[in-house]
Amino acid sequence: MARFVDVRTMVAWTADRGPEEIMAGMIDYLEEDFRRWESFDKTPRVASHTPFGVIELMPTSTDEEYGFKYVNGHPSNPARGYQTVTAFGVLADVHNGYPTFLSEMTVLTALRTAATSAMFAKHLARPDSKVLALIGAGTQSEFQALAFGRALGISSFRVWDTDAAAMEKFARNMAPHGVEIVVTGSAAECVEGADIITTCTADKTNATILTADLVRPGVHINAIGGDCPGKTELDAKILELGEVFVEYTPQTRIEGEIQQVAPDFPVTEFWEVLLGRQAGRTSPEQVTIFDSVGFAVEDFSALRYVRDAVAGTEFGEEIDLVAAPEDPKDLYSLVAAVAPAHL
Amino acid sequence: MARFVDVRTMVAWTADRGPEEIMAGMIDYLEEDFRRWESFDKTPRVASHTPFGVIELMPTSTDEEYGFKYVNGHPSNPARGYQTVTAFGVLADVHNGYPTFLSEMTVLTALRTAATSAMFAKHLARPDSKVLALIGAGTQSEFQALAFGRALGISSFRVWDTDAAAMEKFARNMAPHGVEIVVTGSAAECVEGADIITTCTADKTNATILTADLVRPGVHINAIGGDCPGKTELDAKILELGEVFVEYTPQTRIEGEIQQVAPDFPVTEFWEVLLGRQAGRTSPEQVTIFDSVGFAVEDFSALRYVRDAVAGTEFGEEIDLVAAPEDPKDLYSLVAAVAPAHL
Repeated sequence: MARFVDVRTMVAWTADRGPEEIMAGMIDYLEEDFRRWESFDKTPRVASHTPFGVIELMPTSTDEEYGFKYVNGHPSNPARGYQTVTAFGVLADVHNGYPTFLSEMTVLTALRTAATSAMFAKHLARPDSKVLALIGAGTQSEFQALAFGRALGISSFRVWDTDAAAMEKFARNMAPHGVEIVVTGSAAECVEGADIITTCTADKTNATILTADLVRPGVHINAIGGDCPGKTELDAKILELGEVFVEYTPQTRIEGEIQQVAPDFPVTEFWEVLLGRQAGRTSPEQVTIFDSVGFAVEDFSALRYVRDAVAGTEFGEEIDLVAAPEDPKDLYSLVAAVAPAHL
Repeated sequence: MARFVDVRTMVAWTADRGPEEIMAGMIDYLEEDFRRWESFDKTPRVASHTPFGVIELMPTSTDEEYGFKYVNGHPSNPARGYQTVTAFGVLADVHNGYPTFLSEMTVLTALRTAATSAMFAKHLARPDSKVLALIGAGTQSEFQALAFGRALGISSFRVWDTDAAAMEKFARNMAPHGVEIVVTGSAAECVEGADIITTCTADKTNATILTADLVRPGVHINAIGGDCPGKTELDAKILELGEVFVEYTPQTRIEGEIQQVAPDFPVTEFWEVLLGRQAGRTSPEQVTIFDSVGFAVEDFSALRYVRDAVAGTEFGEEIDLVAAPEDPKDLYSLVAAVAPAHL
């Protein structure tokens, strides 16, 4: 039997535990997995492209556990009332190959993306950071704000989006959380006085939603939205202002902000910072940039965390995904046992 | 919502409909998909190898539907009480990327492999074939026998396995089906008078379970067991006795019996026979060989067939795999709606 967490259960569990609490717990799992980065089998994602969008399988594994995520990306979906991105994922036991855990990952990916951003910022932003500017008030925005509130103690959020309704939605959803929300009228106004700038817009183009002149010394930039070929958010000049940190260089070169610069543009993989092999932030004036694209190991950490957190609770159900005949050579007996008269 | 068929449901449905009836229906779907072979996106499978075995993802798609199978192969599993191979699969709508159907595929793969063999034999074996020799009485054996009984009218099955208990199991499972079962003492005795020879053994080595001197003119060989690198069943000389038919040449060169011969060894892809572009059997004396390895398109056909066959029946349940917030930009509202007080 494998355990299954469906959307309703993921939502109920998130509401019950609180998204901030979950993302804090997830950061512990993420750090554990980033610390053992070299032990992961980092297979490239497998993409099936169609005129409408892309469907991808993202597998990874250690010597003990295997995981993959199914995820689609269909930019025209919202206009038709669908989610741009939906996902589900599976964990399996490497020892016998049996799947052990199946979960929805649309909500879970939102949690893991924000938790990953907060983990990077915890190690790279100035420790005295208090004000976060959020450019883009879509699906990720509340999760990002709650993760940074919890992990870094950010208490003031400035927001900008070309869609006023999205900013209203963000302010409404954040209202119960007792933090300051400032709705602004432009990207320039949004980043005023910000210690951390998060860019999370959805347009699938090489956009410039943040220009270099808006980036003050000491800022940490959390660039979420540039996450596939042809989709970037930052003025390329920003990448010259400080140190760029990435998850997995080969993937970020293709999908991240650094697709705008030379293939040998220097970057630092974050797991090396965690292990003390590379420097993180070196001064309060330094600009640090997380060029986020999302990697399979993060989904693996998120799945592990949920699996462990819901074990023994009412959240999730057992499903019957693996046939278990008494004699492994006698699969047919399962069928014969049910209806011998009919056969 | 996506529909889910678990192991219990697959078994109950198979027993209710009858495996012969199901495999006959599946052959229609397989033929439909092999006829539109060129329209499939035939991505290579993605394998994660470990010391214990392999876990693979096998995706394929048309312009309308996407499907993939998760499947493991762990040769040491039976000795530990586990299935060597377990699987599950998913169909998705290419239009919006949403998963629509999830099914166990351990039982389903057994049905699709036998249905695929029967489809090849229907077009390649002598139409007057009456006797089938089965070398290997493991998991596939009953499914193979029932598929050939239904699709080709085979009424006599001769069986050989080095494991006497497996032959007894085969005879016991087949007893209610009213066909002749002859348990034999060797491969040579088994193939005496056979019109079709099916090899389906599990040893993961380059074995020779059938030698060329045992192959009479006019026989159709259905070689199932040679299905991964380093695993073959036939004397290489047999491949020179007749025409070799395959599913997908690039994969069969690596995984099939033809890994024993030169990379330019001539083979015929079956879809071209179905479309009349290539000859199938050309005389009653010709030896025809299906070098079966199993391909993603067959899993796709099998998933489509089950999905359509269980629609509107009591077999299967709706599962909540895709988050559907009212406003696609407001995923967080799902969480906020459940427990506003807590947040």
